Amino acid sequence: MTTSLTLYDIPSTLPSKTWSPNVSKVRYVLNYKGLPHHTEWVEFPDIEGLYKRLGAQASATKPDGVTPYYTLPLLHDHSTGALVSDSAAIARYLDKTYPETPSVIPKGTDAFHYAFTEALQSHFRATALWRITLAKSNSILNPVSEEYYRRTREASLRLGGQKLEDVVPKGEEREREWAKLEEVFGKVDAWYGKGDRYVMGDVVSYADFWVSASLMWVRKLFGVDSKEWKDISRWHGGRWGALVKDLEKYEAVF
Amino acid sequence: MTTSLTLYDIPSTLPSKTWSPNVSKVRYVLNYKGLPHHTEWVEFPDIEGLYKRLGAQASATKPDGVTPYYTLPLLHDHSTGALVSDSAAIARYLDKTYPETPSVIPKGTDAFHYAFTEALQSHFRATALWRITLAKSNSILNPVSEEYYRRTREASLRLGGQKLEDVVPKGEEREREWAKLEEVFGKVDAWYGKGDRYVMGDVVSYADFWVSASLMWVRKLFGVDSKEWKDISRWHGGRWGALVKDLEKYEAVF
Repeated sequence: MTTSLTLYDIPSTLPSKTWSPNVSKVRYVLNYKGLPHHTEWVEFPDIEGLYKRLGAQASATKPDGVTPYYTLPLLHDHSTGALVSDSAAIARYLDKTYPETPSVIPKGTDAFHYAFTEALQSHFRATALWRITLAKSNSILNPVSEEYYRRTREASLRLGGQKLEDVVPKGEEREREWAKLEEVFGKVDAWYGKGDRYVMGDVVSYADFWVSASLMWVRKLFGVDSKEWKDISRWHGGRWGALVKDLEKYEAVF
Repeated sequence: MTTSLTLYDIPSTLPSKTWSPNVSKVRYVLNYKGLPHHTEWVEFPDIEGLYKRLGAQASATKPDGVTPYYTLPLLHDHSTGALVSDSAAIARYLDKTYPETPSVIPKGTDAFHYAFTEALQSHFRATALWRITLAKSNSILNPVSEEYYRRTREASLRLGGQKLEDVVPKGEEREREWAKLEEVFGKVDAWYGKGDRYVMGDVVSYADFWVSASLMWVRKLFGVDSKEWKDISRWHGGRWGALVKDLEKYEAVF
């Protein structure tokens, strides 16, 4: 197969350059399927211009429900001309367009995949993970994206005029929130069969990439030797550390 | 096969006698698997005594997290001696114990089933369905259960001293809440593949029984000719009405 797929990603100052969990989900899928592809790096303020230049449609809207929200990942399939954003939509597109590659949303599990990611999102929304990671996410960006990210996030309703650093829980509050995060991961752990590494038991699916991309993101932000990553990787019998390790073979950036 | 399974259910004054959506889930499973069974009727105030007489363990606790919460369905498998409560646990028990019958949680979908029911519960918790149905649920019970249900629910924190009838939305509020319910069903509808009747596409699974039992409950409470049921059964291209109709063959009470 020739490289006819371009994956647009946001660069960071980390050695891996990539950091976005949503882009990681797609990269896992591409590597798992063995689909040759090429990464193009786009800084935050340039994403909208990229969409317009390519003639791509935004798949999300801003909180007003109307204004297009231009996000990465965006996949350009040069062989079909398709431009697809949103990681789950890209996974479904690749399953359909390249049926000779291993399916990441196996037959019969499409509705389950929607429900699975919704249940996870709703669990994680109930934690302080976004506050714990917010300033850290910003600090690893290149200056042009760092400035953009800070400016747009600090202007958002969610922050209500606070600086990124102000919402990060500290001291005892952080410990309490961290314990809550472990509890939420415990609820997800309880879904898995005993001894099963993957959501579907023996078979890797997009659901595993979803979970692992979120974990890998924490590992990237805080570093492999951080207390945060050491904690998470030993929680629940080492399930989370083992999963990320197991899927490392699909992490490579091309 | 001989009838060695007893399903404990709560009676009502409805012609079908049965009304509890959680018991319906188990009855669907038993009938789908073709497992002969017999229903025993237990009024609300007698459930705790039943558990104690049989030596069954409660699978849930009251909001204090300690006091056992005795609920139906409870299944007694006389051939193994097992006493299993909680409808999903019963489904898993029956799949494991009777592997020659069609599986309701097909291999590879166990974790997905947990996530699916969690996602649905979290969607429906965000609606006023419990308020819309509360007084109605109470009104169809036999006097001894009606009195018990009213007394325990009205003493709960959730009602904060109000009568069952006080929390039921009326007039414009009801219309607004009803529209919200349609919206939530629309989110679930979007999970399904185009033209698919079942969550897994071609194959019936416990997930379908979960959805259908909840729908059937509304049909039972308000009646098949009610505005409520007519609305729901035509929402989303008739998906919900068609599902309940399709699974009617597994509704029979033995």
